Amino acid sequence: MPVFASDMISSVAYAPDEILLALSLSGLVALTVSPWIGLAVGIVILVIVACYRLNLQAYPSGGGDYAVARTNLGTRAGLVVAASLLVDFVLTLAVSMTVFAGYIGAMIPEVKPYKVAIAVAGILVVTLAGLRGSASIRRMLAVPTYLFVLAVLTTVAVGTYRVATGDTPVAATSGYAVLPVDEEDTALMGLTAVFIVLRAFSSGSVALAGVQTVATAVPGFRSPRGRNAGITLLITGALSACMLIGLTWLSARIGIKYVAAPTEQLVAEAGRPIAADFEQDPVLGQLAQAVFSGFPFMFYVVAGVAALVLLVAANTSTEGFPGLSSRLARDGFLPRQLATRGDRLTFSNGILLLAGAATVLVIVFGASVPDLIELYLVGVFTAFVLGQLGMIRHWTVRIRRMVSSPVRRRMQLNRVVNGIGLVLTAGVLTVVLVTKFTGGAWIAIAAIAVLYVLMGLIHRHYRRVDSELAPDEDDVSARTLPSNTRAVVVVTDIHKPMLRALAYARTSRPTFLDAITVAVDEEAAEALQDRWDRMDLPVPLTILDSPYRELVRPVMNHVAELRRRSPRDLIIVYLPQYIVGRWWENVLHNQTSLRLKSRLLFVPNVVVATVPWRLRSFTRAREQLLRRAGDVDAESFRELH
Amino acid sequence: MPVFASDMISSVAYAPDEILLALSLSGLVALTVSPWIGLAVGIVILVIVACYRLNLQAYPSGGGDYAVARTNLGTRAGLVVAASLLVDFVLTLAVSMTVFAGYIGAMIPEVKPYKVAIAVAGILVVTLAGLRGSASIRRMLAVPTYLFVLAVLTTVAVGTYRVATGDTPVAATSGYAVLPVDEEDTALMGLTAVFIVLRAFSSGSVALAGVQTVATAVPGFRSPRGRNAGITLLITGALSACMLIGLTWLSARIGIKYVAAPTEQLVAEAGRPIAADFEQDPVLGQLAQAVFSGFPFMFYVVAGVAALVLLVAANTSTEGFPGLSSRLARDGFLPRQLATRGDRLTFSNGILLLAGAATVLVIVFGASVPDLIELYLVGVFTAFVLGQLGMIRHWTVRIRRMVSSPVRRRMQLNRVVNGIGLVLTAGVLTVVLVTKFTGGAWIAIAAIAVLYVLMGLIHRHYRRVDSELAPDEDDVSARTLPSNTRAVVVVTDIHKPMLRALAYARTSRPTFLDAITVAVDEEAAEALQDRWDRMDLPVPLTILDSPYRELVRPVMNHVAELRRRSPRDLIIVYLPQYIVGRWWENVLHNQTSLRLKSRLLFVPNVVVATVPWRLRSFTRAREQLLRRAGDVDAESFRELH
Repeated sequence: MPVFASDMISSVAYAPDEILLALSLSGLVALTVSPWIGLAVGIVILVIVACYRLNLQAYPSGGGDYAVARTNLGTRAGLVVAASLLVDFVLTLAVSMTVFAGYIGAMIPEVKPYKVAIAVAGILVVTLAGLRGSASIRRMLAVPTYLFVLAVLTTVAVGTYRVATGDTPVAATSGYAVLPVDEEDTALMGLTAVFIVLRAFSSGSVALAGVQTVATAVPGFRSPRGRNAGITLLITGALSACMLIGLTWLSARIGIKYVAAPTEQLVAEAGRPIAADFEQDPVLGQLAQAVFSGFPFMFYVVAGVAALVLLVAANTSTEGFPGLSSRLARDGFLPRQLATRGDRLTFSNGILLLAGAATVLVIVFGASVPDLIELYLVGVFTAFVLGQLGMIRHWTVRIRRMVSSPVRRRMQLNRVVNGIGLVLTAGVLTVVLVTKFTGGAWIAIAAIAVLYVLMGLIHRHYRRVDSELAPDEDDVSARTLPSNTRAVVVVTDIHKPMLRALAYARTSRPTFLDAITVAVDEEAAEALQDRWDRMDLPVPLTILDSPYRELVRPVMNHVAELRRRSPRDLIIVYLPQYIVGRWWENVLHNQTSLRLKSRLLFVPNVVVATVPWRLRSFTRAREQLLRRAGDVDAESFRELH
Repeated sequence: MPVFASDMISSVAYAPDEILLALSLSGLVALTVSPWIGLAVGIVILVIVACYRLNLQAYPSGGGDYAVARTNLGTRAGLVVAASLLVDFVLTLAVSMTVFAGYIGAMIPEVKPYKVAIAVAGILVVTLAGLRGSASIRRMLAVPTYLFVLAVLTTVAVGTYRVATGDTPVAATSGYAVLPVDEEDTALMGLTAVFIVLRAFSSGSVALAGVQTVATAVPGFRSPRGRNAGITLLITGALSACMLIGLTWLSARIGIKYVAAPTEQLVAEAGRPIAADFEQDPVLGQLAQAVFSGFPFMFYVVAGVAALVLLVAANTSTEGFPGLSSRLARDGFLPRQLATRGDRLTFSNGILLLAGAATVLVIVFGASVPDLIELYLVGVFTAFVLGQLGMIRHWTVRIRRMVSSPVRRRMQLNRVVNGIGLVLTAGVLTVVLVTKFTGGAWIAIAAIAVLYVLMGLIHRHYRRVDSELAPDEDDVSARTLPSNTRAVVVVTDIHKPMLRALAYARTSRPTFLDAITVAVDEEAAEALQDRWDRMDLPVPLTILDSPYRELVRPVMNHVAELRRRSPRDLIIVYLPQYIVGRWWENVLHNQTSLRLKSRLLFVPNVVVATVPWRLRSFTRAREQLLRRAGDVDAESFRELH
């Protein structure tokens, strides 16, 4: 359970911060309201978890809300869900790694200025782990999640004990007061306290994003998948809710502050300004420092484990995003190369796409958590709402078909549960949209819209090509074969690759076999002809004129001429290609033959046969690779060479 | 003659500026010394022209100093010359376009802040013209050169007439005095006047760079090439020398100033500072304004024609650089794709390389002429020196062989001429090196060194591969052919491209023919099998398992298995490939088959036959292209499709 759960659980590392931050804008209500907001988010978590257990039972083969919405509400709804989730997977990665950089900065204050670089480095690590995608890594990932739950619960328990015994812990910011923002965010100052509370609630809802991850990742569970995933969800949800409620309650009790601009918004007891170099730690970090006041080591443990669990949580993105995009690719909504696995059994293209997008986001938003959070959640809750709507439809259809009682009654009950989920998630979505639209949610909405349109266009393109390629009746029965085969070997020099091409061309026993060379340099061409004759090669060599030192055009003209003379023949052009071992060798080899090939493929009835010649550098590079890797595939590769 | 000449002639547009600029550092001597420097440069021009007429007679097939040095002094010397010239072709383009931006700025002062953008735009225009490379453009290019010569000579003549009649023209800067630089260039202030004069001379020598262009561009002349190029050189040299001497003399007579920082270095008559917004025009522009004082229109004519001739001069770079790099590529010192011409009969790769390098230079040096001039000339004069040395060796060898008199005596005379050339150019090279090394010449030297080493490594690589590929004795006589051919058609779906691949595979009559498909999705695979059976295709279909939704690995394993069972057979894998009409369609098609192909080529005894399928978008795009272009090739293309 731990890997998929980590996303949801790790959100506890930043959800309290976002709640306090949003409340700090009012400057006053923070202390009294934040635990209630924590409680509200906790309740929403539990309700949604209850709903998603039903989803998983009904669609145990996975796909999450995309499958639910597409099956019950049609393709358009499915695509909206898919686009929303793709955007939110990117945001999950960006947010997790930004928070990760924050915890690293809390532990090592010297690196705080480099948080963008640290976040990008985090993305890189997660990407590489995702590309390797080994099962042993995944097992390792379980440890931090357990440790994190343990650390947070211990912190809350010790803190509560100290509060109960009258020894209330004191945090760095406990004595500070929060000034209301005046100039910074004037638009918000005119709003009522209700709006601010709602905004805090919507920011706190990041804790919910993880539910989607589990739902989408179902294929990764052991059978019976639906049930196992459901249990995971339940445990994770309950734990997250407890941790969140505990943290917000305890931090409010201790008087922890978290604001956007500490030096401006915080004042010490007597209204004196605080130290100019005051650095504000995440809420969980402050709490750990306060609770284990005599024992600073525990602060590093909590912050370190938080950083680790965020890395693990990011890992769920690199599972969820490629999984969903592969499904979309198979359904023809994304480019086909996203559909199949790469060499290491991972959907590498999808992972790279995800990492690229997240890196761009982190850099553009300067690794600022509050800014990224503004974009977040629109997608998650859009998916939630459509998913619940789909489930209600699912039950309605089934209830209508069902005659008899107990099953039917349970289905009706399920429908009520999903109905409650729909109302709740729709409510949160509305809150998120209203409170965050101008703050950045519009960017996410625009991205979702663009993705939606793009997927539609891709689908239309594939459908159009499919209809273009559909075999006709006469293709099936009476496809007449070309009458003869004419093989042409393009000769640039007399060397082994060319001799191999010639040998292969002869092996395939064409009706006619020609060798041609282009006289880019007349003397060289004559010398070539001499050597050809001396070697007594059993194929005639034709020399093509090239007054302008071209290579491609004379060959094209020759092939065109062949085609003109015998339009019903199949022309096979044999081209040697060097297989090189080092990337830069591609600059020195193959360029002309690639150009020639791409042009030859324009001509009807021409097939280009590529005859590979493996340079020594290739075999050497391959051997080195095998020696270094001790790879699973080493055996099979060795057999091939 | 005008196109090749334009490079040399256009240098008159900035050589006087550089002379005055270098002298202005001393603050005093400018007025008296500059005409003598102009005269000295003019004399050097004439001597070098005389030398190069001999080069051209001796090596009429072109290649310039590269050919001369390589033939007479060996490969190493040839490569030094080649590297020097490649670097200087890039600098010619960068300098010309920077000066071009300067003249545009003189005409339209509003655009002065955008000189980098204008220079880059100039490079773009020249590159596009070079890529088109049409003869009609070249004929058009003659006009600006004639106009420029006419404009400069008219300016000088009218100015001289006015001076002679006592009506001395007055320029904007005539009344100003130059202050010596104190802080700006402290290193130089300690140097003697001699050094400053030498520096001015070396800067003025930019007027010589064009000689190389003519020499390298010889293949472009009409026969008898050597003689025609020689005459061009003579006329161009004489004209350039006259124009340069006239301009420096006249501007000194009128008292034109040109300094690095006008507002700091210039003061008005009574020591009063000049206007803070004073903008300094190029010397030729100031002269035109002064000479045609009552008639400002002429200023725009002169400046406009200067800008035009600089564009034409830049064009010589796009002829010279690709020409030389093609020669080097044919000799195996540069990647082979630089050797042959592209679709429009131009060496497009070389032109793009040149344009890229020049753009980088312009941007890095902020389109500053003095900074770029610092890098210039090292290469030109290195080439000159080695070229002259090569010519002396050339005559010496010939004189030794020769017995009888008149021819022998003429050769001895020629050797003396080249000897004078050697002494002069070596002198200038020394001056350039001494006066400019720290200013930027070291960058050019470093670039030349890097290029030299790189060309050596490329040559070694090609030689090594050549020896690896050289056919052995047994390759020649007793090459045994593979015993059977096994054709494999990879099926992903039943559509026309696949049916075509199957038909072509059958046409080539292999010993065994297999169709294989990978069961990425089991249901889809069964459906495919059903359709296959129903269509009654005459080839058996093998379904390969793929438990991990992979496509490449199962095919690889199948091919490896085939190879294991019959190691002496030739395996031909038929892969359909879509030929698309729009670049983005490549993202949606062919990716998997490309990956499959690149992996299959790793396996010995495997040939990949690419069966093209032209999508409708391709034929449509092609037709549009033909309709728009009205191209020379339209006919031949139309025949092909």
